[in-house]
Amino acid sequence: MALKSHQIEKIQSLTMADIAERRLLDYFKKNAVKPGDAIPKEMELAEALDVSRNVVREALSRLKMLGMIESKKKRGMVLSEPDIFGGFERVLDPLILKQQTLHELFELRMVLETGLADLLFLRKSDADILELEKIIKKSKKQDTASFKVKHEIAFHGKLYEMTGNATITRFQTLLLPIFEYVVAEEEKLHGVPPVSDVRHSDLVEILKSGTPQEFKEAMRIHLSPHFDRLT
Amino acid sequence: MALKSHQIEKIQSLTMADIAERRLLDYFKKNAVKPGDAIPKEMELAEALDVSRNVVREALSRLKMLGMIESKKKRGMVLSEPDIFGGFERVLDPLILKQQTLHELFELRMVLETGLADLLFLRKSDADILELEKIIKKSKKQDTASFKVKHEIAFHGKLYEMTGNATITRFQTLLLPIFEYVVAEEEKLHGVPPVSDVRHSDLVEILKSGTPQEFKEAMRIHLSPHFDRLT
Repeated sequence: MALKSHQIEKIQSLTMADIAERRLLDYFKKNAVKPGDAIPKEMELAEALDVSRNVVREALSRLKMLGMIESKKKRGMVLSEPDIFGGFERVLDPLILKQQTLHELFELRMVLETGLADLLFLRKSDADILELEKIIKKSKKQDTASFKVKHEIAFHGKLYEMTGNATITRFQTLLLPIFEYVVAEEEKLHGVPPVSDVRHSDLVEILKSGTPQEFKEAMRIHLSPHFDRLT
Repeated sequence: MALKSHQIEKIQSLTMADIAERRLLDYFKKNAVKPGDAIPKEMELAEALDVSRNVVREALSRLKMLGMIESKKKRGMVLSEPDIFGGFERVLDPLILKQQTLHELFELRMVLETGLADLLFLRKSDADILELEKIIKKSKKQDTASFKVKHEIAFHGKLYEMTGNATITRFQTLLLPIFEYVVAEEEKLHGVPPVSDVRHSDLVEILKSGTPQEFKEAMRIHLSPHFDRLT
């Protein structure tokens, strides 16, 4: 197996703030610090780590960004439940990610959307189906390119929401700009992909009276015009 | 739709470093700054943002943590391709995440592993199948609980690796401690789950001579002892 750059770390690239940040994370884990627990003051930490307060402030600021630390009035700093995708959200800019990473994220979409079927059949409601049908009805009245993108987002986004899984739903919401970017880039190179044999209305029919197995296969075919280009 | 706390932001909770960090991210996007491009010096940024250098240093430190900024000898700071899951990795501590989030991440595993089938059939090689068979053979010689966990990780991890998708593979590697934690917690409450009717050796047989559809269904059954507990 080839060594990947994230598996081993360049020693010289570590700054004092990097080291302080890790020491803090280790400290939380080893002492089983939980959300709501107070953490030592900046000055105490600087003494314990034997670094300047500026270094500690940098390290704490990073953890604040991730939502792991909150400043409370009167109580000082406490550990808090982090925003699980906070860091991910910040780096998801198509202009700064490698082409390879963008394509891999697009494949992840295919994986997720075929894999959703079991959760969908477990949790779908009549109201969900009605909403999907409404989304499709709206799309028949308009036909501009920008509307099509909005329609895609509304339909597929609703499917994620139907899983009742907020983490999966948020993950997809964050990935949407990447999906759109990859589709637009592909279209520049190869033109608009052929329309799939399975349309949104077919997917809804299967949700109404089909099986998860049928849905997985139908979703695969629905996404295949994009998927075929990637492989 | 209920308003979720991450959709709207408390105004008073923003610090100067939060604002500076966003201004920097906006600046990169609006000016289409790309990896390798130099970015303004700390002092220039402090002047442009009209804040102290400490605030700028904090904001830059956050972006350094995400791998978006690198300090280069002689060239100063440059934008760099971020580590897409760097922030995610830091917050994945089962002790600080909500039970709800942990369960949702476990469901994400189910979604991913049934969804992998199409990529697996597209990219599997004879060498991959041989390695899966080796992993199974090893597991027949040992039977301790800790070995079983290792075996699970080796087998399912190999499946992810076979997708040839480094982003998906890394995502799963990061989620592994969460999966283990959730399984262990479930076992404390409800005992060891029943063994699934579909075993690893059945999955390998399908990879050898079956179809992606069969694989998806078999994986669902394979994971169902865990899945049934979650719903």
